[in-house]
Amino acid sequence: MEASAAVESSATVAAFEVSRRPDTGKLVLNSPSPPSLREELVGVVGKAFRPRAAGGGRPPRCAWALTALQCVFPVLTWGRTYTLKSFRSDVMAGLTLASLGIPQSIGYANLAKLDPQYGLYTSVVPPLIYAVMGTSREIAIGPVAVVSLLLSSMIQNVVDPATDPATYRSLVFTVTFLAGVFQVSFGLFRLGFLVDFLSHAAIVGFMAGAAIVIGLQQLKGLLGLSHFTNSTDIVSVIKAVCSALHDPWHPGNFLIGCSFLIFILTTRFIGRRYKKLFWLSAISPLVSVILSTVAVYATRADKHGVKIIQKVHAGLNPSSAKQIHLNGPHTAECAKIAIICAVIALTEAIAVGRSFASIRGYKLDGNKEMLAMGFSNVAGSLSSCYVATGSFSRTAVNFSAGARSTMSNIIMSITVFITLELFMKFLYYTPMAVLASIILSALPGLIDIKEACTIWKVDKMDFVTCLGAFVGVLFGSVEIGLAVAIGISFAKIIIQSLRPQVEVLGRLQGTNIFCSIRQYPVACRTPTVLTIRIDTSFMCFISATYIKERIIGWVREEVEMSNGKARERIQAVVLDMSSVVNIDTSGLTALEEIHKELVSLGIQMAISGPGLNAVQKMKVSRVVDRIGEDWIFLTVGEAVEACLTEHKGTALEC
Amino acid sequence: MEASAAVESSATVAAFEVSRRPDTGKLVLNSPSPPSLREELVGVVGKAFRPRAAGGGRPPRCAWALTALQCVFPVLTWGRTYTLKSFRSDVMAGLTLASLGIPQSIGYANLAKLDPQYGLYTSVVPPLIYAVMGTSREIAIGPVAVVSLLLSSMIQNVVDPATDPATYRSLVFTVTFLAGVFQVSFGLFRLGFLVDFLSHAAIVGFMAGAAIVIGLQQLKGLLGLSHFTNSTDIVSVIKAVCSALHDPWHPGNFLIGCSFLIFILTTRFIGRRYKKLFWLSAISPLVSVILSTVAVYATRADKHGVKIIQKVHAGLNPSSAKQIHLNGPHTAECAKIAIICAVIALTEAIAVGRSFASIRGYKLDGNKEMLAMGFSNVAGSLSSCYVATGSFSRTAVNFSAGARSTMSNIIMSITVFITLELFMKFLYYTPMAVLASIILSALPGLIDIKEACTIWKVDKMDFVTCLGAFVGVLFGSVEIGLAVAIGISFAKIIIQSLRPQVEVLGRLQGTNIFCSIRQYPVACRTPTVLTIRIDTSFMCFISATYIKERIIGWVREEVEMSNGKARERIQAVVLDMSSVVNIDTSGLTALEEIHKELVSLGIQMAISGPGLNAVQKMKVSRVVDRIGEDWIFLTVGEAVEACLTEHKGTALEC
Repeated sequence: MEASAAVESSATVAAFEVSRRPDTGKLVLNSPSPPSLREELVGVVGKAFRPRAAGGGRPPRCAWALTALQCVFPVLTWGRTYTLKSFRSDVMAGLTLASLGIPQSIGYANLAKLDPQYGLYTSVVPPLIYAVMGTSREIAIGPVAVVSLLLSSMIQNVVDPATDPATYRSLVFTVTFLAGVFQVSFGLFRLGFLVDFLSHAAIVGFMAGAAIVIGLQQLKGLLGLSHFTNSTDIVSVIKAVCSALHDPWHPGNFLIGCSFLIFILTTRFIGRRYKKLFWLSAISPLVSVILSTVAVYATRADKHGVKIIQKVHAGLNPSSAKQIHLNGPHTAECAKIAIICAVIALTEAIAVGRSFASIRGYKLDGNKEMLAMGFSNVAGSLSSCYVATGSFSRTAVNFSAGARSTMSNIIMSITVFITLELFMKFLYYTPMAVLASIILSALPGLIDIKEACTIWKVDKMDFVTCLGAFVGVLFGSVEIGLAVAIGISFAKIIIQSLRPQVEVLGRLQGTNIFCSIRQYPVACRTPTVLTIRIDTSFMCFISATYIKERIIGWVREEVEMSNGKARERIQAVVLDMSSVVNIDTSGLTALEEIHKELVSLGIQMAISGPGLNAVQKMKVSRVVDRIGEDWIFLTVGEAVEACLTEHKGTALEC
Repeated sequence: MEASAAVESSATVAAFEVSRRPDTGKLVLNSPSPPSLREELVGVVGKAFRPRAAGGGRPPRCAWALTALQCVFPVLTWGRTYTLKSFRSDVMAGLTLASLGIPQSIGYANLAKLDPQYGLYTSVVPPLIYAVMGTSREIAIGPVAVVSLLLSSMIQNVVDPATDPATYRSLVFTVTFLAGVFQVSFGLFRLGFLVDFLSHAAIVGFMAGAAIVIGLQQLKGLLGLSHFTNSTDIVSVIKAVCSALHDPWHPGNFLIGCSFLIFILTTRFIGRRYKKLFWLSAISPLVSVILSTVAVYATRADKHGVKIIQKVHAGLNPSSAKQIHLNGPHTAECAKIAIICAVIALTEAIAVGRSFASIRGYKLDGNKEMLAMGFSNVAGSLSSCYVATGSFSRTAVNFSAGARSTMSNIIMSITVFITLELFMKFLYYTPMAVLASIILSALPGLIDIKEACTIWKVDKMDFVTCLGAFVGVLFGSVEIGLAVAIGISFAKIIIQSLRPQVEVLGRLQGTNIFCSIRQYPVACRTPTVLTIRIDTSFMCFISATYIKERIIGWVREEVEMSNGKARERIQAVVLDMSSVVNIDTSGLTALEEIHKELVSLGIQMAISGPGLNAVQKMKVSRVVDRIGEDWIFLTVGEAVEACLTEHKGTALEC
């Protein structure tokens, strides 16, 4: 097959070089045949499972096994050139990271409706696994706000964490395990494109909505409320707050929460203003926890209505393998929740990783990231962790603190481990309000109003996606927001395919360039030849009828307008198919029908520059034979010239 | 806005005409701004509700009201020029149509699990309404096999027609009413594109599957079985037949069915061979009914196990308005069934109408057809009819019999009406087996093996759609088949958008034509300039990352390959965006990131020929400013030339 194509093409080369004025039409028809479906599939599968060297270049000559190992564990690549200087930087970054990570983890565990230690557990195991498997150097792994919210809002529809915490926890671990398995399989089957299904605009809207929902959830801790709604939509929360305010509440909680929120925000402002003081914003949450705990302990404010954590459990992650139930009554629901969490977690991690990788100038391998995140979560689910991913705020701190490699994640993990072993009992008196203020302080980073404005300015349809996600999360639920965003995004693609642009082309005076007369009003239409460009890369069932009717409509209009004036009458129609890469049977039928219609009107039809697959299918389906091989051209210019020559010939005959 | 655009463009014209060598880059950036979302919406709505003259041309000068009336009732247009000669042709066609339509209607009513008279009712009212509103001249309206199967297979999941025929009937009328309402609203809101959602390949597969399922259902009548399955999938039916064959059965039914099936098929064969005898095949079903009825009556075969119709009810359509329940317990299910029936009925009618319109050389208005079909069904549902649409087999007979206008439908309707009034009691002794043989004889027309072979040859993915629909209908149910077909069709579009082609271009020697070196191996790559074409009309979130990584990957490979050899090193990358009509924020970000990456590698980036919307968005999002206005060109040739000149300049400086 390939040999014959090569012979054909070399024959074409010869023919081409001999003749002075190249017969480019022949070139179009003699182009090599595109790979068949089988060849393409083999190619895709082969590519997916062929290990590549970590650098992305050609594999080195050392053993295949080492290459494969290096491919799975990038630590083997960077570890060999790791220096003491880098290590010192990583230790500093890791400690800074831990000082921010510990209070955030406790807060997010609270958001996920789990006891505080589970947040810390999640900051121990997943970072270690990621450190040896991940390709990003700056990303900080651990619990994050949006995934914590997702987990709690969806799992509490199955089991109430307040009445049955043990079952709730077991569902959390099952979901974490399944999410890890999904992520691993996305990585193995090269489904990296799945994270692209959430467009940038959708993420902006979704994150902003989620941030507001998370903020509203913190009202419970900030106001020290005992009764609160389980719903996450804004209407239910405001109702719950209003009704709770009628009960007696303790302003002490509010006072603590607000003062530390102001403290954290002030330090962040200072950190932004004076780059050297950025560590101030990194350690301020830890300082807040320590100060507030000491204050409560000293004043025994918990006896006066200030809510404190109380439930603390020291020691390293216990095993949770027995709490994972893969054949329980809720497995189907768990799988559904897991796939949503898996995709959201990956989307966040890859977005964070890519943005920092592009600052440092290296490339992130999406599929390897998925594998690393997946194994982190599988390992996490077996050791009492919930879904971990890359955090926006902590990754930024890690980067600013000068992290050189994933070693900083290891340092952080060790620090959290020491905290779990030694300092857990001090958390007993930590007020809930300070946790709320730590979570609240992390939220502004999730709301990107500037980006939303840019989206509005640049692309109104994208803004609709963004707004849909935002409103869906805020007034519906997290899942509704996601569904709306994905629905609008895909509808956009379908609409674009449904009504492709079909443009009348004109010639730029003095050149052989044909371009849309709508886009370039200086272009002049060629008399007696109507040149039309089909602006879709896939002329398929969904658009074929529209394209056909549009073209036939124009031709009829032109014919009617020139009624009687034989000189101005259209003699030929040139279809510029240079954008059409592929075509399906409906598209081919439409072409045939256009041809039939034009023939019935006594008009010649010519086609220029169809793509490889389109040419092949036109040949196989005999559309080329019907139109005539002589009427397929490489460029619009040639087609128009041929039509004009032909017309002159017939005009003379008349 | 428009004024300023006009000023701009006229300024461009001036600038363009003065300079000899046109600065086409300016042209790209100064192209008029595309219509805004608001303008586009206004345009679409305005277009949808502006009445057009029936001929598709400019509206005549007579009163607007008459135009609007003519628009809704095409009979007012063709009626004025209707001649006696046409009427004679139509009477002949109408009578032929009735002779085929009466037995088919009774058979299809049986397939829809209704009493025989309901099929005849459906051949009276809808054709009358269609005759004054429809735009097709040949289409024959009435019950059809696929819609009858759809109705019975879906409604019997709600109510069993054997145990509760009254409720079943009321659901049928409700579904018919709702289907009519849906069709009318599709027509009003110009949703004609909905019928395009079922691709040609999907219809071929679906029809073939439905034909086999209908054929299997006829085994009940053909074998005279009393107990039969309600499922339509092939496995259940074969099981039911096998278990029924163990009970005593009467070969008389089988004998009658087979002999008349052979008779009908023979006459059809003769009709195909000798075009003048086509009427033989048209009247053979009626002849079969008469002959078999007389034979059964004469031999009293019904006493020996031959199943006969028995239930007959003479007289014109009774009103069924009271049987339509829009707020009953099953309304939601009825609406679901109605929308499926509405779309399938329209797809069939428009496919039939279009193919015959294209033979006669006139254009069918999809939206008007929808209105006409919708009103036919609404009126039908009020007069004891079930969902009617255009039938493949009867339309072909109508066409062959020389129908000139929808008058033939009126003649047929009157004939059926007379039958209902006078001859119904003769149907008492008609054997069920002959109805089965009439339905069976109509099925081969639905199975288009030749077309399936063509689809396989031309487009493998389309064949997968076809096969999916076929297998889905055969082994699942009609709905599953439809869902599979639509799912695969849309997945095809998404996959095409997900992995667009990105091609390296080369120059055809001696010309300024750049084309894909994969498609045209004779094209030569320009040294030091890498030219890449992005082959997608919508560079959006789903493909942006892929395109970016593909381009950056190539550039890096090239840079690595030329390592050390400064002369061969790439100096510039030209992105040919002539296929890119539209772009969204993700696409813009990808462009920016490509630019950033190229800058970091010391490579110049140039863009050529982006579409109107793409240019606009690139300007608004300041991507143009970042790339530099001087690096946007109209054609690849200009871009490459500019890059080469620039490179020579720097090379000299070095």
